[in-house]
Amino acid sequence: MSSAFGKLLTITTFGESHGPGVGVVLDGCPPGIAITAERIQHDLDRRRPGQSAVTTQREEPDRVEILSGVFEGVTTGTPIALLVRSVDAHPQDYAALKDLFRPGHADYTYWKKYGVRDYRGSGRSSGRETLGRVAAGAIARAILNAAGVRVRAYTVQVGEIVAADRDLDFAEENPVRCPDRAAALIMERAILATRDAGDSLGGVVEILATGVPAGWGDPVMDKLDATLAWGLMSIGAVKGVEIGDGFASARLRGSEMNDRMSKRGFETNHAGGILGGISTGQPIVARIAVKPPSSIAIPQKTVDIKGEEREVRSDGRHDPCICPRIVPVAEAMTCLALADALLLQRALRP
Amino acid sequence: MSSAFGKLLTITTFGESHGPGVGVVLDGCPPGIAITAERIQHDLDRRRPGQSAVTTQREEPDRVEILSGVFEGVTTGTPIALLVRSVDAHPQDYAALKDLFRPGHADYTYWKKYGVRDYRGSGRSSGRETLGRVAAGAIARAILNAAGVRVRAYTVQVGEIVAADRDLDFAEENPVRCPDRAAALIMERAILATRDAGDSLGGVVEILATGVPAGWGDPVMDKLDATLAWGLMSIGAVKGVEIGDGFASARLRGSEMNDRMSKRGFETNHAGGILGGISTGQPIVARIAVKPPSSIAIPQKTVDIKGEEREVRSDGRHDPCICPRIVPVAEAMTCLALADALLLQRALRP
Amino acid sequence: MSSAFGKLLTITTFGESHGPGVGVVLDGCPPGIAITAERIQHDLDRRRPGQSAVTTQREEPDRVEILSGVFEGVTTGTPIALLVRSVDAHPQDYAALKDLFRPGHADYTYWKKYGVRDYRGSGRSSGRETLGRVAAGAIARAILNAAGVRVRAYTVQVGEIVAADRDLDFAEENPVRCPDRAAALIMERAILATRDAGDSLGGVVEILATGVPAGWGDPVMDKLDATLAWGLMSIGAVKGVEIGDGFASARLRGSEMNDRMSKRGFETNHAGGILGGISTGQPIVARIAVKPPSSIAIPQKTVDIKGEEREVRSDGRHDPCICPRIVPVAEAMTCLALADALLLQRALRP
Amino acid sequence: MSSAFGKLLTITTFGESHGPGVGVVLDGCPPGIAITAERIQHDLDRRRPGQSAVTTQREEPDRVEILSGVFEGVTTGTPIALLVRSVDAHPQDYAALKDLFRPGHADYTYWKKYGVRDYRGSGRSSGRETLGRVAAGAIARAILNAAGVRVRAYTVQVGEIVAADRDLDFAEENPVRCPDRAAALIMERAILATRDAGDSLGGVVEILATGVPAGWGDPVMDKLDATLAWGLMSIGAVKGVEIGDGFASARLRGSEMNDRMSKRGFETNHAGGILGGISTGQPIVARIAVKPPSSIAIPQKTVDIKGEEREVRSDGRHDPCICPRIVPVAEAMTCLALADALLLQRALRP
Repeated sequence: MSSAFGKLLTITTFGESHGPGVGVVLDGCPPGIAITAERIQHDLDRRRPGQSAVTTQREEPDRVEILSGVFEGVTTGTPIALLVRSVDAHPQDYAALKDLFRPGHADYTYWKKYGVRDYRGSGRSSGRETLGRVAAGAIARAILNAAGVRVRAYTVQVGEIVAADRDLDFAEENPVRCPDRAAALIMERAILATRDAGDSLGGVVEILATGVPAGWGDPVMDKLDATLAWGLMSIGAVKGVEIGDGFASARLRGSEMNDRMSKRGFETNHAGGILGGISTGQPIVARIAVKPPSSIAIPQKTVDIKGEEREVRSDGRHDPCICPRIVPVAEAMTCLALADALLLQRALRP
Repeated sequence: MSSAFGKLLTITTFGESHGPGVGVVLDGCPPGIAITAERIQHDLDRRRPGQSAVTTQREEPDRVEILSGVFEGVTTGTPIALLVRSVDAHPQDYAALKDLFRPGHADYTYWKKYGVRDYRGSGRSSGRETLGRVAAGAIARAILNAAGVRVRAYTVQVGEIVAADRDLDFAEENPVRCPDRAAALIMERAILATRDAGDSLGGVVEILATGVPAGWGDPVMDKLDATLAWGLMSIGAVKGVEIGDGFASARLRGSEMNDRMSKRGFETNHAGGILGGISTGQPIVARIAVKPPSSIAIPQKTVDIKGEEREVRSDGRHDPCICPRIVPVAEAMTCLALADALLLQRALRP
Repeated sequence: MSSAFGKLLTITTFGESHGPGVGVVLDGCPPGIAITAERIQHDLDRRRPGQSAVTTQREEPDRVEILSGVFEGVTTGTPIALLVRSVDAHPQDYAALKDLFRPGHADYTYWKKYGVRDYRGSGRSSGRETLGRVAAGAIARAILNAAGVRVRAYTVQVGEIVAADRDLDFAEENPVRCPDRAAALIMERAILATRDAGDSLGGVVEILATGVPAGWGDPVMDKLDATLAWGLMSIGAVKGVEIGDGFASARLRGSEMNDRMSKRGFETNHAGGILGGISTGQPIVARIAVKPPSSIAIPQKTVDIKGEEREVRSDGRHDPCICPRIVPVAEAMTCLALADALLLQRALRP
Repeated sequence: MSSAFGKLLTITTFGESHGPGVGVVLDGCPPGIAITAERIQHDLDRRRPGQSAVTTQREEPDRVEILSGVFEGVTTGTPIALLVRSVDAHPQDYAALKDLFRPGHADYTYWKKYGVRDYRGSGRSSGRETLGRVAAGAIARAILNAAGVRVRAYTVQVGEIVAADRDLDFAEENPVRCPDRAAALIMERAILATRDAGDSLGGVVEILATGVPAGWGDPVMDKLDATLAWGLMSIGAVKGVEIGDGFASARLRGSEMNDRMSKRGFETNHAGGILGGISTGQPIVARIAVKPPSSIAIPQKTVDIKGEEREVRSDGRHDPCICPRIVPVAEAMTCLALADALLLQRALRP
């Protein structure tokens, strides 16, 4: 089930970049959750292109339609199908790329895996696939909100620039979605300069879930951090996932890493809110490494299907840094993983 | 299914540290794979305690028994159950820990999740659970070897010490399992010094899979890197997973990160052998962040089940750095993920 | 995953009778299978209402749209989403039924399970849900046809009338889909007479799969017959499933039931083509018991949500016997189960 | 996952007839369920051979050992592994059958599927595999009992003899496990006479679950009846499954089949306690068709691996009718399906 995620609350996304539409089926949603197309649209709009100068200038209105599973404003417990129709697709723009394997893209690997390929706008490996994730994530978020859980993500690094502050309200007010006022401005300039140079930039996005009670997540294989790692690493462009101190913990001693407990609870949170795969009741903190977008205007050497060497360059309408637009996708996958953990824990101890 | 991993080749591990035994059922293994208890034992011995001064000095012979699924030396296609009996368990040693929540351990979270807890030697959250993974991984490795794939792991960082070289044969010849002769010696000394100080050290383990052809791994949710991230993050003590350039890619530009192709194939491997979730045919490279072991001899503040503040200290028989013993576990999870991907690709394009 | 079926070739259906549409996502389909909307439409038309006097006279054009997973006439290996838009739905017709629990329908149980209910035209429990199954089944059929497998179903009993003959070509030429010329006529008359009396009739549908080689199906839990039983019993109105001699085998002795083998192969097929859950290479034969449709024009006693006793009667636009229209659904579920078994066997022994 | 059953409460059985042992891992069991080896043994003893003259005279003590997941008499929420060691296996007795395909057995199909086969005592397709089901079912039964649900099965038909009465207490007091005093005696005599003639007899077993509240079971694919059909049909020797009126409903009119409701609830139970795949709150009634055992003392024609025609006959130590011993297995599968449905419903509406 290559396009499915979740045990009880399951999503299956579908759709190619330039096909009739992309979407998702969310199965296993409890009944009685209030949801509207507007609420889902709100999250979709946060991942929409063309929001600012630091994102791609493509225009994709991306209006969601609820096809099933919602009746008179609430979920009914049946599968919720959500569809975003494609508009204004110019597949002919991609005819030139038909036989090319663009560097950093999945062109070559899809070709080797399937032997056929919808080459238009990256086809299935397009970032448009994440529309389905974000749409379903909005419903998972509604489930979590009812349980007092809040999930937010924000850009904490772009290239060499690292955010020090965590002003989460500010994060949604600047185009980079950075929670540090000073860093946000420098990041924005760095992205624009890189774009003007025809290049792109990587970064790091942090995810924060507050209000998760102790006891969510299954031990052993379905550890909460393992499920988060699966979900977050399944987002295109993500090359790493860490929880709590993550890779920094490799440099620590046990006496530094261990979160001690007193009568007031945990005194630190090096673990990032998860011990033995189960939530501790502290904030859950994860970070993902986001590679620089592969489509750049600088000409790049590559080969075509026949093995002939060619040159390829993007038309410049691509994101110079995908961090701001990965933020809602990372939130969606986190919401889906946490809402699933909530349901699983309910089954275990109602 | 909290203790299961894999789609077609599925493992379910079972067992608590001080129960009658730990083990695994491997379901979905193709018939005709030559396997013996000795072959499995070889991998188990690599994760066994007491191998050197840098590991715990506990004695656990850990002999595996094949209960089913193998007949006259080959797999029959039916579930393979593998059992390792516990010996010399002294559960009374743990009576003192019965009501304590040890810092860094899963004591508190299991208590909150289940309301009951087998407290003896960490119970289910003990590292002994990985015996089942390694035993099943040995069979997955046999499947992969027949397909020309080789999976190895080794320690590339301990505390602040980072390996520069990759002499993989040497890695199995030193107690730290480090592929860099100079670094190995310094790492060993650092671990011993930390142990003598009653503390523990974190590190980084790298996994390398060679011989994987292009086309393995499903796109979207079951990306090969997402499955690896799931499997590797499900190992206790792992706090981060990265593929290829991983977190370093956050600092790169697209023109640096993209692996260009020529007639000779890919010219670099920043992607770590996976693009769009599908193998490229290049070596697959992953790294995991390993936290310092939580059990240390230095007294630590904590609370008990009643919320009373207490002090806890380990008896000193624990691993001062778990990297050398995580190596075979990381290999096992990688073998399981890759062998599953192999079977899935066979189903798709025989 | 209440709306999913299949291990490798997985369907998830969605949609309510009077919502915007019903459909399905088929995940795990191999690439390179030639498929068109017309081919799928052909199977959908076989389950369409209004085909003859023995089916409901409702008009539902039920045009399918391929939303994803097919490019230039062949499958690409990515999820195939299929959508059938609702037209001409008159949900106001159902306002009167809003608070009623119709006898034989799922009104009461959905209400008890979910606490909310899309009451319009049976909502999710409507027979329109099977549109998604039939649409996906058409693709499974294409996979099977390429492997030389053919799946057909036909009505072998209506009320007390039992078909003796198996003229499968004729089955598609009469409105009852009965393979016995004499019985077909009597069945048709019985259905019309029952309809005119405001009542409905049950029946039995037989499924025949030819060309399945020996070796498909997993033993133990995922026996081929167990998977067929799951898939067929999941069709609304089905109250029983049997394989080969089925319930008649309860009356047999071992010496009668056992299919003996000679140099020419099996000499009989009491087993219905499956032994130990694995196909024998003989034709696979299954039968399903189909209850009489619950909607009848005869007034029936029931209660409403408040527990008040009420009377309910159908408007007469319902099927007097659902066997002819269950035929394509039973074929679809069989095709899906068999195509999945084909892929699973390919993974095991390519 | 050919040896797994269940969504949240999952079993994976393992083991061959003459291997070191057979067993099961039950994953997903809630914590705090009181369970002992004795309680499990009680159910195992009900399926044990040698209980009476109507079963096989083989001696198999079949003592169960709890390997994990139970601590101080209660489940801990972790996987429960249960092992039954083989004793007194005489694999050499089966050397003569090594190359033979016994009629009615899975010898031929396993050979065609896997290319290798543990031929000793039917290997994996032996009835001994059901030991794991019954052992795990005992725990599922404990979960259900705590919820007020009781599951019983009993023989209602042997050959042509059909039970009219349903004296369930009596069913456990006679060797046929028939709830009709008069029929039980005739059935017993019929079985013994058939055994003496070297032959075997089929039959029907009925399953009754009382105390199931309305609302269990998922609609569409995971209908409660579909899950039961899957689980029951996965038992070797079962050739048919029906719910409520089952195949008899084919002969009924809607006005007869529909269960009408009054203020006192449902007035009849033709549906067998399930509507639209969801429990109605009435008793759940299912029946399974059980074929006559394939091993008979009458010589039968068959072929060997080389295609040579041979003759085969059983040594007479086999069950002349398997109904009495399928009773606990059918109960186990029903308990597993219902306990899973209970957990799933808790997740949906705690």
